Amino acid sequence: MSEDGSAYDELLDRYARVVDVGNAQGLLRWDQQVMMPEGGTPARSKQLSTLSSLSHDLLTDERVGELLDDLEDADLDAEQAGAVREIRREYRRETRVPRELVERISEAASEALPVWESAREEDDWDAFAPALEELLDLKREYAHHIDPDRDPYAVLFEDYEPYLGLDTAERVLGRLADEVPPLIDAVRASEVDLPSPFEGEFDPATQEDLARDVLDALGYEWEHGRLDTSTHPFSTGTQFDARVTTRFSPEDPLDSLYSTVHEFGHATYTLGLPREEYGSPLGQSRDMTVHESQSRLWENHVGRSRAFWKHFLPALIERFPRLDGLTPGEMYAAANRVDPDNTIRVEADELTYHMHIALRFEIERDLVADDLDVAEVPQVWNDKMEEYLGVRPETDRDGALQDIHWSHGNFGYFPTYSLGSVLAAQLSAAAEDAIDDLDGRIAAGEFAPLTDWLCSEIHRPGARMPTDDLVESATGEAYSADHFLEYVTEKYGELYDL
Amino acid sequence: MSEDGSAYDELLDRYARVVDVGNAQGLLRWDQQVMMPEGGTPARSKQLSTLSSLSHDLLTDERVGELLDDLEDADLDAEQAGAVREIRREYRRETRVPRELVERISEAASEALPVWESAREEDDWDAFAPALEELLDLKREYAHHIDPDRDPYAVLFEDYEPYLGLDTAERVLGRLADEVPPLIDAVRASEVDLPSPFEGEFDPATQEDLARDVLDALGYEWEHGRLDTSTHPFSTGTQFDARVTTRFSPEDPLDSLYSTVHEFGHATYTLGLPREEYGSPLGQSRDMTVHESQSRLWENHVGRSRAFWKHFLPALIERFPRLDGLTPGEMYAAANRVDPDNTIRVEADELTYHMHIALRFEIERDLVADDLDVAEVPQVWNDKMEEYLGVRPETDRDGALQDIHWSHGNFGYFPTYSLGSVLAAQLSAAAEDAIDDLDGRIAAGEFAPLTDWLCSEIHRPGARMPTDDLVESATGEAYSADHFLEYVTEKYGELYDL
Repeated sequence: MSEDGSAYDELLDRYARVVDVGNAQGLLRWDQQVMMPEGGTPARSKQLSTLSSLSHDLLTDERVGELLDDLEDADLDAEQAGAVREIRREYRRETRVPRELVERISEAASEALPVWESAREEDDWDAFAPALEELLDLKREYAHHIDPDRDPYAVLFEDYEPYLGLDTAERVLGRLADEVPPLIDAVRASEVDLPSPFEGEFDPATQEDLARDVLDALGYEWEHGRLDTSTHPFSTGTQFDARVTTRFSPEDPLDSLYSTVHEFGHATYTLGLPREEYGSPLGQSRDMTVHESQSRLWENHVGRSRAFWKHFLPALIERFPRLDGLTPGEMYAAANRVDPDNTIRVEADELTYHMHIALRFEIERDLVADDLDVAEVPQVWNDKMEEYLGVRPETDRDGALQDIHWSHGNFGYFPTYSLGSVLAAQLSAAAEDAIDDLDGRIAAGEFAPLTDWLCSEIHRPGARMPTDDLVESATGEAYSADHFLEYVTEKYGELYDL
Repeated sequence: MSEDGSAYDELLDRYARVVDVGNAQGLLRWDQQVMMPEGGTPARSKQLSTLSSLSHDLLTDERVGELLDDLEDADLDAEQAGAVREIRREYRRETRVPRELVERISEAASEALPVWESAREEDDWDAFAPALEELLDLKREYAHHIDPDRDPYAVLFEDYEPYLGLDTAERVLGRLADEVPPLIDAVRASEVDLPSPFEGEFDPATQEDLARDVLDALGYEWEHGRLDTSTHPFSTGTQFDARVTTRFSPEDPLDSLYSTVHEFGHATYTLGLPREEYGSPLGQSRDMTVHESQSRLWENHVGRSRAFWKHFLPALIERFPRLDGLTPGEMYAAANRVDPDNTIRVEADELTYHMHIALRFEIERDLVADDLDVAEVPQVWNDKMEEYLGVRPETDRDGALQDIHWSHGNFGYFPTYSLGSVLAAQLSAAAEDAIDDLDGRIAAGEFAPLTDWLCSEIHRPGARMPTDDLVESATGEAYSADHFLEYVTEKYGELYDL
């Protein structure tokens, strides 16, 4: 074997251990949110913190630096070059952050989770504020270590989307902030009313059966996953074991159904990563924008389509016979009702959703820049909600305490939700071009053509290309908001007779 | 701070990371047996193997050796000295084993688990044999690294019971092998028949409710634990989160009930370890003999007592009303029926149980010594069962494939089951002396006096004393089989009118 070859192999072996530790952390976190008894927190915090620092030590080992130097001018093929590029990027970030700080962040985040949970339960922002302040301090320090000369928020953002850059995020979010509100205003002014067909309570156990039906129909591989419930639905895992969680609202069976479909999108991406590349960047996902594009594509472009309800309505009626008589058209309308009065991000429709993100983006930018006091967040939050959507949350539980992300110390994550939705529209348009009669296939319950296309264009490439290259390779176009704006203009124009 | 003090603190900090990694492994294994989808095995094997090698690297770090040297003649108090003694013992063992071997053992064990599961399901010893052979080879190599001059089985045994020594095990097991069979023969010859009051099927969901009732009654701290089902009941965790599993046999509600009580004993030990010492040997349990003494004490000396059924029978009848009319005396008799025809260890009564252990002890000693071919195990197993208990398993599922231990590569573990049962009797006798009217308290459903006594005598000391010192400190006597033999002679003498 050539010297380059053995340096490459050693680098990949070392990186595989980092991946294993990361996946162990993922399982410990899944367990903490889904299975762990409450009293387990102190030990779990310590375990997660130790794994964080071990992962840091493994990645920043001197030998990794030497191997990366050795490979600087090596003769690598495109795949190898992609793997080395990713490891180098991660190495550079990690070497700048002291291990003690990594540990402190992990421990603080782990301790903040139950604090947030009970603060949310009690509707008590002040109970959460000190934990949030500590996490902000730690994350500012973290960003400063990585690059003291740049906007710390831009640095943090790159943990979730390393290639598109905060300027792209600002440009795309800016276009949404300009072009979506007029649509929301038009909807509000429309004579059309899309009522919900749901009245009374929907038994959570039956909803769970329904969620399993949906996952079956979409092709979820149960031998490589499982469905559980958690306060905040999420998906986690590897190409061998990608799990989803959901939650059940007795009043609204669509809430759980769309959470399930959303997380299915994430899990299907993870399960589509090449199994033979487990442990390598070639077997890792391409970060949050792309991940969110997969969940939003399944949730919105599939799950909120007419074709989906043509296929799936009988299963819904079978589980809830009192819905007998509903038409696919009525379900399609109900699933796409725009509700500017809703204050909850995860329940938001495709239009107002981006206002929820804009609000969080602005608040967390100001928090990280230290231009906003933690104590003032609920007030600012509510003022912005009133400004953007004309509604004021009655409690912080329905306001600034609703999302789990800040309790994880994840500042810079929220923008990827909008970026991912935008990408979902671009990919959906490309899939329609590539797949003969995609709508007809979905209406016939044939989801495999879409899964297969996504798998070959997005999943199997793993992290071998930067985000922008991956988008261009899959869609033949540069990343932009065009498709998304076209999609919502046409869809909501028709629904609301605009 | 003195130099000794700072060396001690640094040593303990380093050791705490080893404990965290070990607990992360414990959670990954719990998940693998309780929650993980089948397809997750390849990634989980790699994760466990990486954590094994990391734990090995952390413990065998040169700096740990330096700190241990620094502390060799240091002025430490008794607790500190105990902690250092434990770390030194583990360090010495681990430094002798190459990391690659640790990884290979972990990976092989992780891969062997599903192989064993399906071999057991299919009753196919040959399917399991290659995995077992590989694990034996690896464990022989492991023992050779630790001490090439000693019996490898004695070396492996010390992984589970580091202080009593294989000679004590042989002496105690030898006494059981001499003195228990005459009792079994006498029972077999007795005119007394203790029939089972159970007929028909017992709904597993109701059995699960019953298991939760029992755990409630015994005082299981649900905020620090959970109950699940698994093929092989087990308990795992930390003083903050100690979980139990059980399984349900539709024909026999006592099987699940006693599995649950057994695992409760393990979990209660774990939960009784001092929380403020989490991460230190002072907060770790004193290995397998002592652990098993806790599970067997609760299972047999509490759960199979007359007093227990005086208290608990109403709860059983409430769950299964068709048992109305049963008396506590009849339940006591049913719970203590000696059945020499039973071939399953975990279903065995208190007498024949030790013959099941003797058989495994002999077979695994021969396997490790390479005096027995893996292919011959089922034949030898069945022959020995016939010799010791006069019964021949009809399948390997009911014979050599019944236990999970060998699929974990745990050779040398089985003897601790008998050693623990023996210790349970000794502790039970000491608790009876120490607690006023213990039987009456149990009959009144008051389990706290016993839990408290065990907690102060056995749980809170953690691993600060060697096994023999701990036994002597708790009972005022050296470890011996006397109490066990007295207990079974009296109990079964009365039950069977011997």
